[in-house]
Amino acid sequence: MTIYEEALSAHKQWRGKIEVTSKVSVLSKEDLSLAYTPGVAEPCRKIAEDKTRAYDYTWKGNSVAVVTDGTAVLGLGDIGPEAALPVMEGKALLFKEFAGIDAVPICLATKDPKEIIQIVKAIAPTFGGINLEDISAPRCVEIERALIEELDIPVFHDDQHGTAVVVTAALINALKLVKKTPQDLKVVISGTGAAGSAIIHMLVDLGVKNIIAFNKEGALNTEMTNATFVEKEILELITPQNFNGTLAEAFVGADVFVGVSAPNLVTKEMVASMNEGSIVFPMANPEPEITYHEALAGGAAVVGTGRSDYPNQINNVLAFPGLFRGAFAAEAKKITSGMQLACAYAIADSIAYSELNSGYIIPSAFDEKVVDLITLKVAEAARKDGVTR
Amino acid sequence: MTIYEEALSAHKQWRGKIEVTSKVSVLSKEDLSLAYTPGVAEPCRKIAEDKTRAYDYTWKGNSVAVVTDGTAVLGLGDIGPEAALPVMEGKALLFKEFAGIDAVPICLATKDPKEIIQIVKAIAPTFGGINLEDISAPRCVEIERALIEELDIPVFHDDQHGTAVVVTAALINALKLVKKTPQDLKVVISGTGAAGSAIIHMLVDLGVKNIIAFNKEGALNTEMTNATFVEKEILELITPQNFNGTLAEAFVGADVFVGVSAPNLVTKEMVASMNEGSIVFPMANPEPEITYHEALAGGAAVVGTGRSDYPNQINNVLAFPGLFRGAFAAEAKKITSGMQLACAYAIADSIAYSELNSGYIIPSAFDEKVVDLITLKVAEAARKDGVTR
Repeated sequence: MTIYEEALSAHKQWRGKIEVTSKVSVLSKEDLSLAYTPGVAEPCRKIAEDKTRAYDYTWKGNSVAVVTDGTAVLGLGDIGPEAALPVMEGKALLFKEFAGIDAVPICLATKDPKEIIQIVKAIAPTFGGINLEDISAPRCVEIERALIEELDIPVFHDDQHGTAVVVTAALINALKLVKKTPQDLKVVISGTGAAGSAIIHMLVDLGVKNIIAFNKEGALNTEMTNATFVEKEILELITPQNFNGTLAEAFVGADVFVGVSAPNLVTKEMVASMNEGSIVFPMANPEPEITYHEALAGGAAVVGTGRSDYPNQINNVLAFPGLFRGAFAAEAKKITSGMQLACAYAIADSIAYSELNSGYIIPSAFDEKVVDLITLKVAEAARKDGVTR
Repeated sequence: MTIYEEALSAHKQWRGKIEVTSKVSVLSKEDLSLAYTPGVAEPCRKIAEDKTRAYDYTWKGNSVAVVTDGTAVLGLGDIGPEAALPVMEGKALLFKEFAGIDAVPICLATKDPKEIIQIVKAIAPTFGGINLEDISAPRCVEIERALIEELDIPVFHDDQHGTAVVVTAALINALKLVKKTPQDLKVVISGTGAAGSAIIHMLVDLGVKNIIAFNKEGALNTEMTNATFVEKEILELITPQNFNGTLAEAFVGADVFVGVSAPNLVTKEMVASMNEGSIVFPMANPEPEITYHEALAGGAAVVGTGRSDYPNQINNVLAFPGLFRGAFAAEAKKITSGMQLACAYAIADSIAYSELNSGYIIPSAFDEKVVDLITLKVAEAARKDGVTR
């Protein structure tokens, strides 16, 4: 059986990977009158006086809605809200297993960004945070920004920032191995959608000065006429802004390649044209821009992919559970770029310098101390950034 | 400590009465690739081909959204979505404890019926059913009808039909004791909101011919000019339509009183003016239209209230868990009036004729055979009504 056949059969058996369970036993009239009527009226009255008390008397302080419109699910594209549900259940499962957070899938039967914003605002009183998921770019950016602006709970689009955090963590550790600093790097990025744009923003936060970015049509530059608003913003951030060569030309003398685009865009020869100590993260899924082994054959010093069957899996599961747990622990109203950078450093620092090697720059998602360290560092950053309730 | 103090302290300790838990262990990379990427892509693809397969591969067949706008919570009125959350969590708890159903609170920050309809339609792909809760009348009727019309999953407003089902169940058994039939009854109802209107619809389904209904201003009759659309519909159903007397006048010669209105509207003398073998269900909460003991002192043969501290508690908890479980078992797309009536009979029939007495016309919510019998009978009715998928 392939993994796909096995997963299909398992899903049929599970009929749901999550369930809603009771934390309170209801075995008698007395139990009922405490957890339900008439007793429940009292916490209701207290919250009606001051709605922030919902954090004291309900699940609000530990709950997340995992919201999608099903437009960009895995590599499958726009498959609709019903078909997105297995992924959102999976995400909810991971929230619980890795961070003890109560997450609920919400798959929406609308693709209108304005309507999605309105709906998420309307359901927000129930939840302590919103995790946006698998919403196509650049709509996802518009939706996330509006919600961050208008809501007083953390809103986080994992496909953008979760990926950016883990790539940055991997880069931090890879730089330790090749003994380079962000300021001195030439970085080439393929893909300017949700993940690519967030990665560029975060690399700039990290201190990277020289970035060349590509979309399907070529290098982002000042002569490009059909750039999305997200790409126009990126263009303002990157230097040089006038690069007009091919991807192969950009590779010459580069230190880092990050791919969040499409299979087989990069050759061994392109990797060979990079600077000594090159770092190559081809993360298109399931088929990367260049295979792990080809990249090594091209002379890359460190290679990381999105796949679990090679070393250095760059996997969002490392970031979002601890990031939300840290935000909840600090009672944060937002997830700031400072908190995201703190998360990246916490992931990187989970591996001691003495343990680091080119096949081990990223910790395992199953290493429990990672979430604990992220929680601590993200909560610290939230307090430092002054975004707590 | 009062029950209210005790409940407040318990809620503070619980910080949420429900949680989302994993049905699948994720302890290794292999687990992750089965429940999440890459394996999860396969059920996604299958559902994208045919969205009804969501019932095979996700929690959809067993999940309910408990949706409120917080406008009519318990007896507390319009207290807002945050303050409604403890009740919705309680409801979700009861869904799980009594019927094994995964229910999620959704408290909405909007009171606009059109917007509520639009939002519930948008979140519906995630859930197998919608339980509307604590939405004020007559808006609740408009919202429920639009959703029943437009969605292909069961939609049920518990404050309307849950109450109607349990009142009807209580009446069915009370009639066995006083040896009367629905066709021969004169019924007086105080309250024409969510519960009152649904009760009248259901009593007509049961075969009752003679009903007089009161709202705050007096008897519903053809001369009333400011009736809501719900009240206008009721007026078409009831006979006589021209009654213009007081509540006390209506009581004379009545067989049944049902109160879903306000405290202390009914006196012992009014009960004494009813026919022999009178049935009195004063259910205003927490203070009924007449107390249990006063109603008995007035000569009522059978008395039931909404309170747990007297015999014959008429409690919605008896209906909604089994009703949804039966609908899910039959793969029903709607909850029909036939299914509701089947539910009422199942509740009534849970007590053997030999066990029935004036202090025991309604089974305990903790009697497990009640939910089992409801499930069976409701599923049968769904098949008979031809509303299965």
